[in-house]
Amino acid sequence: MSLLVQKYGGTSVADVACMKCVAQNVYETQKKGHSVVVVVSAMGKTTDNLVVLAKEVNPRPDNREMDMLLASGEQISVAVLAMTLHAMGAEAVSMTGPQAGIFTDHVHAKAKIVDIKPERIFRHLDKARIVIVAGFQGLTPSQEIATLGRGGSDTTAVALAAALKADRCQIFTDVDGIYTADPRVVKKARRLDEISYDEMLELASLGAKVLQSRAVEFAKKYNVMLEVLSSFHSKPGTLVREEVTDMEKIVVRGVAADKDQAKITLQSVLDQPGVAANLFKELAAANINVDMIVQNVSQEGHTDISFTVPVNDLNQTKDVVEKLLASVDARGMHIDESIAKVSIVGVGMKSHSGVAYRMFKTLAENSINIEMISTSEIKISVVIQECQADEAVQILHTVFELDQAPAEEA
Amino acid sequence: MSLLVQKYGGTSVADVACMKCVAQNVYETQKKGHSVVVVVSAMGKTTDNLVVLAKEVNPRPDNREMDMLLASGEQISVAVLAMTLHAMGAEAVSMTGPQAGIFTDHVHAKAKIVDIKPERIFRHLDKARIVIVAGFQGLTPSQEIATLGRGGSDTTAVALAAALKADRCQIFTDVDGIYTADPRVVKKARRLDEISYDEMLELASLGAKVLQSRAVEFAKKYNVMLEVLSSFHSKPGTLVREEVTDMEKIVVRGVAADKDQAKITLQSVLDQPGVAANLFKELAAANINVDMIVQNVSQEGHTDISFTVPVNDLNQTKDVVEKLLASVDARGMHIDESIAKVSIVGVGMKSHSGVAYRMFKTLAENSINIEMISTSEIKISVVIQECQADEAVQILHTVFELDQAPAEEA
Repeated sequence: MSLLVQKYGGTSVADVACMKCVAQNVYETQKKGHSVVVVVSAMGKTTDNLVVLAKEVNPRPDNREMDMLLASGEQISVAVLAMTLHAMGAEAVSMTGPQAGIFTDHVHAKAKIVDIKPERIFRHLDKARIVIVAGFQGLTPSQEIATLGRGGSDTTAVALAAALKADRCQIFTDVDGIYTADPRVVKKARRLDEISYDEMLELASLGAKVLQSRAVEFAKKYNVMLEVLSSFHSKPGTLVREEVTDMEKIVVRGVAADKDQAKITLQSVLDQPGVAANLFKELAAANINVDMIVQNVSQEGHTDISFTVPVNDLNQTKDVVEKLLASVDARGMHIDESIAKVSIVGVGMKSHSGVAYRMFKTLAENSINIEMISTSEIKISVVIQECQADEAVQILHTVFELDQAPAEEA
Repeated sequence: MSLLVQKYGGTSVADVACMKCVAQNVYETQKKGHSVVVVVSAMGKTTDNLVVLAKEVNPRPDNREMDMLLASGEQISVAVLAMTLHAMGAEAVSMTGPQAGIFTDHVHAKAKIVDIKPERIFRHLDKARIVIVAGFQGLTPSQEIATLGRGGSDTTAVALAAALKADRCQIFTDVDGIYTADPRVVKKARRLDEISYDEMLELASLGAKVLQSRAVEFAKKYNVMLEVLSSFHSKPGTLVREEVTDMEKIVVRGVAADKDQAKITLQSVLDQPGVAANLFKELAAANINVDMIVQNVSQEGHTDISFTVPVNDLNQTKDVVEKLLASVDARGMHIDESIAKVSIVGVGMKSHSGVAYRMFKTLAENSINIEMISTSEIKISVVIQECQADEAVQILHTVFELDQAPAEEA
């Protein structure tokens, strides 16, 4: 008998019919003798609809109020799932994030879980109840409702699995695992049986939307065995786990594209020590995740600084940058929302050379211009024009032989 | 400068346009120098839609889960109203019932407010913020979300007004005050300038849906000056206040019909001491509000017992009664959902006689059969067939001269 944390995303609970399938799946897991904690997202388009509602009354709604608004979506889901389970004869109880003992920091709209007090969950599990927890939300030190940002339900699930010392955290979603690339873009994309935390982390943060990167970080930190699988059929999924030596045989594990990035360029900034530092200090203070940064060579004491941020942070970024423009003697700011970041990822890169060269050469041969580059030990990312992103992913998938199953997996 | 509690019902915040009107009204009240606490219901049909959703997955959903579900509706409202006020430049902050310090008893779906700890509200008011509180909800002693039952937002508003020692509690609604009868049924119904707590209490509990009776009880108990007025224009409304001698000049203040009642008859029950007591003890234990009770004369040691309950409580009532049928040797149970309770109310009845006779005679002359009767010092209620309810109200309105403004008001 194990303790399992199961997470079902918004598409898995999109409507009443889906909700019933999820309830069936959960109840059957319990009947097999497991203790089950379920984390659910808001039903279908609920969150999107709430965002639309907010924008109708205020184009730039306050983050605290947005959290108050959005948290209602998951509250609806947990109650409906509990009722569905009751109708099947199961014992189940729903909990909001705060009720489940999920405590976050102060940062509204993208709060981080800082602590979980699972006593209340354990009390219900001890009474053989299925415990259903609202994903994506928690309580700040000042007793405010905070959300973890989009995709935060994965993080809730993994953090709960860590706090409850669960045997496994199963992420049920609308795909049946992690793929070498987005199957909607690359027809020959293959499902991976396993992937290391680090590879998954790169893929998650690079736009493979199956898992939220913060969730993978948590899983890595607390060594939570993570499984990504389909909520629509019962095939095995992809296991996300510690790296083992065998994994390095594969040079590139996957290719990802992130189209939700924007590039900001500060034109002709004063090239003096501290200018860039000050800019990125202010952006960090506003909790904006700057991703890639490029600074041109200096001309006449001035230089261009470009960086990328998630499109969602663009409004806030503009605010911060506009305040600084005069103080850094910049000529202006240019924003390009039509960019994409394309990346290749694999722990095998550590022990194989020439990967970057091969990537850049392939893109050049196909007339795809590289605007920015960033690398880590196990990934290479390039910023290109958004309209070429799908093509780039397809080409790289073929070049790095991801179309065929590798020898050791075949 | 006063402290005002303003409550806006679901129709007042039905959509974004309405929400903006409410925000305008609230902000203008604050600009006049008042401190404002706003209580809002769920937007438009939100609650109804959530109930439909619940019934789709479970025909008899658990009350605790239902509260979890329904409380989300008000949470959405308060956040959206705060955002709307922000867009106008106002300082405003939203709070759930639990955050506002509203504590209830354990009874899910119709919890009673037992305590309010208003410190958090005062902290925000001190910073000149408009405080927006989710109506209809609170926190139980075991930290569960509870709702106060339909219309509970009125109670929230009055209880807050009492706890905050507000100067006035204004209930904004889709009608412009309390009428002598439902204007949709009686064309000549007139708006009252004032009404006593006791009269309002009878009318509220008798189906005049403008104010919830628990709210009026609270107002009476803590002497909260209550004002019912329209959210769509700025005419004066009806003041609900302490009784003054002058009020007794009016014999009948209003006529009300309640169509949401059902009559249960236990047929041929053993006529022994304790049988009825046991029945109503069990119903009370299940928190069912039994309204009128009639017991027939005994025949051969058996009798019929009839009583009325709100239609919403019918399922639960059936459960309770079915368990008792055998033990009281009853022949069976008969349920009639097509009844209505029609009542006349007025503090003047205390000092005027013959009112009941006049009511019964009028109904008889119009071939309206009376099935049950109940009276208090200031009201007379009869149960009749639902299809005759509107006619009865119209006739009684005319007979008791409510069509014309009374001499002292004219």
